[in-house]
Amino acid sequence: MAGFDSATAVRRQPGDGAVHRYDAELDPEWRIGTKPNGGYLLAVLARAAVDVAASAGAAGHPHPTAVSAHFLAAPDAGPAQVEVAVLRLGRSASQLRASLIADGRRYVEALVTCGRLAAAADPWWDDLPVPPFPPEESCVPATHDALAFPVPLLKVVEERLDPATAGFAVGRPSGRGEIRGWLRLADGRPPDPLALLVAADCLPPATFELGVVGSWVPTLELTVYVRAVPAPGPLRARPWARLVTADRVDEQCDVWDSGGRLVATGHQLAGIRLPEGPPLPPAPPGAQR
Amino acid sequence: MAGFDSATAVRRQPGDGAVHRYDAELDPEWRIGTKPNGGYLLAVLARAAVDVAASAGAAGHPHPTAVSAHFLAAPDAGPAQVEVAVLRLGRSASQLRASLIADGRRYVEALVTCGRLAAAADPWWDDLPVPPFPPEESCVPATHDALAFPVPLLKVVEERLDPATAGFAVGRPSGRGEIRGWLRLADGRPPDPLALLVAADCLPPATFELGVVGSWVPTLELTVYVRAVPAPGPLRARPWARLVTADRVDEQCDVWDSGGRLVATGHQLAGIRLPEGPPLPPAPPGAQR
Repeated sequence: MAGFDSATAVRRQPGDGAVHRYDAELDPEWRIGTKPNGGYLLAVLARAAVDVAASAGAAGHPHPTAVSAHFLAAPDAGPAQVEVAVLRLGRSASQLRASLIADGRRYVEALVTCGRLAAAADPWWDDLPVPPFPPEESCVPATHDALAFPVPLLKVVEERLDPATAGFAVGRPSGRGEIRGWLRLADGRPPDPLALLVAADCLPPATFELGVVGSWVPTLELTVYVRAVPAPGPLRARPWARLVTADRVDEQCDVWDSGGRLVATGHQLAGIRLPEGPPLPPAPPGAQR
Repeated sequence: MAGFDSATAVRRQPGDGAVHRYDAELDPEWRIGTKPNGGYLLAVLARAAVDVAASAGAAGHPHPTAVSAHFLAAPDAGPAQVEVAVLRLGRSASQLRASLIADGRRYVEALVTCGRLAAAADPWWDDLPVPPFPPEESCVPATHDALAFPVPLLKVVEERLDPATAGFAVGRPSGRGEIRGWLRLADGRPPDPLALLVAADCLPPATFELGVVGSWVPTLELTVYVRAVPAPGPLRARPWARLVTADRVDEQCDVWDSGGRLVATGHQLAGIRLPEGPPLPPAPPGAQR
C-alpha cells in the first residue's frame, strides 16, 4: 500500500529554465474507478508547487492555501510529470502555476497560492460550526467494492459514513443532497494541509444521496481553500450538492479537524448524468429509507 | 459613462503564435477605491478567452462556465493586455488560460472553462432557492460616496441593498455576515454570463455587516461558476462570510436572476484586517441596530 507521502512524491529534474520539471508516479491505489482521484492530483501538483516556492526563496510559504484546478482529461495511473512556473513570490503569499502532463499531453492545469498557515484555532467569526456527526465508531466503513465500480481509494483513505447519509450504499438514498463522513489516512499519517486537498474531494458525491448512483461524477473544476493546519486525529467532511441541472452539479465540501475547526473547503463543478424522472423526495430528517 | 460592453472590450492583436494577445483598457468607472473590481477583471479576461475559443473552432462555446483567478497584484485603470493560451478545445467544453498584463507585469492569472449554457430553467434539484428579498424599490440605493473611500463602480452597477443587511452604511452593522442586494447594469444592458462574473463580486463585502468596515477586502482567489443564461431584469445577489480568521475571509456569493433561478456562484478567499475586539453579537433577525 502506497502511503500518502510516497504516493504524492515528486522528484525534481535538472534544469534552469523558467519552468521547473518534476517526475511523479500516479499511484493506482489512489483511484476511483479507473482514474486517479481529483483531490489526490491536486496534492501531487501542490507538492511540486510548494517545493518550487521554497527553492525560489519563499521557504516561508510551505502550505498550499488556495488551489484551483481545471481538469482537461483524466490521466491513468503511472508515470507523469509536473511543470511549475512561478507567477509571483510575495511577502505573505507566493503564487504558482502547475500542470500535470503524461505521455506529452496536458491533463490538469492548476493555480496554486502558497503561504504559511497557523494551527487551527478559534476563528474570529464562523458561520460553519461542525454539524452533528455520530461517533466515528458508530459510522459505516465505506468499502472499496460496495459500488458497481471499484474504489481503490478506500484502501488508502479510511472513510466512515454517517448511516443517515449513506443510504445510497444499500439502495435507499435519503433524498437529501449531503453525505457526512469521518476520514483518516490508512497509513496512520496525521492530516496536514496537503492531505486536506484530498479530504475536500474524496467522499462519495453528495448526489449519490439524491439517487444519482450510476457513476462517479467527473470533476471539471475544483478549488480548495486550506484555512489552517489541522490538529492530529480524524477529519470530518460534509459534501453537499448545491444545484443540479441537466448535466452539471456544483458541490461543496467542508472539512473540520478533530478539534471541530473548519480547516478546508472544496468547491467543485462536475458533470452528471441524471436518471429518468424527478429527484427523490427528501426523507424526514433522521429517517433512513 | 463606459457601459459594460465597452468597458470590457478587448481588441485582438496580430500574431500567429500559441499565445493570443489582446489589448484592453481598464475603465476607471469600474473601480472600488483606486483599483478595478475583481469581477470586472474576470469579465475582461473571460471575454478574450471566449473570443479565442470561438476563433479556434469552438464557436459552440460562447459562455464562460467556470473561471478561477489568482490575483497577483491590483492593476491600475488604463491600458492593459490579455494573453490567452488554449489548453484544450473539446466537444462540450473548451479550457483556456488568460493572463492580465500591464506595463510588462502580470497582475491576474485565470483559468477559464467555456461552454454553451441554456437559459435558466427549473433545475433538477436545488438546495439554494432565492431567499426573501424586499421589493427592489424598497431597498436602499448604494451610493458611490457613502463610504470612507470612493466606489466609482456604483455609478455603472446599480445596487439596492436590503435595509436589514445594510446597517454598515449608517454605522449599525447587523452582526450577521451577509448582505442582500438587487443589481442592474446602469447602462440598461440585460445581464448575460459575462456580466454574471461581475455580479458575483460587486456587492460590498459581507464582513461589512460584521463591523469590519475600514477598507475593502483584497481578493486573493476568486472562482465563479456560471450555471445558466439569466433572464432579463434585475439580479439578486447574496454575499455571505463563511469563516473569518486573523487575516483571511472566505466569502461566497450566490446570484439569482429575475425568475428566481440560481445562475451564478462566486467563492473567494480575501485578505482582511480585523478590528480590535470580538465580532458584534448578531442582531435578532429582522432587527436593525
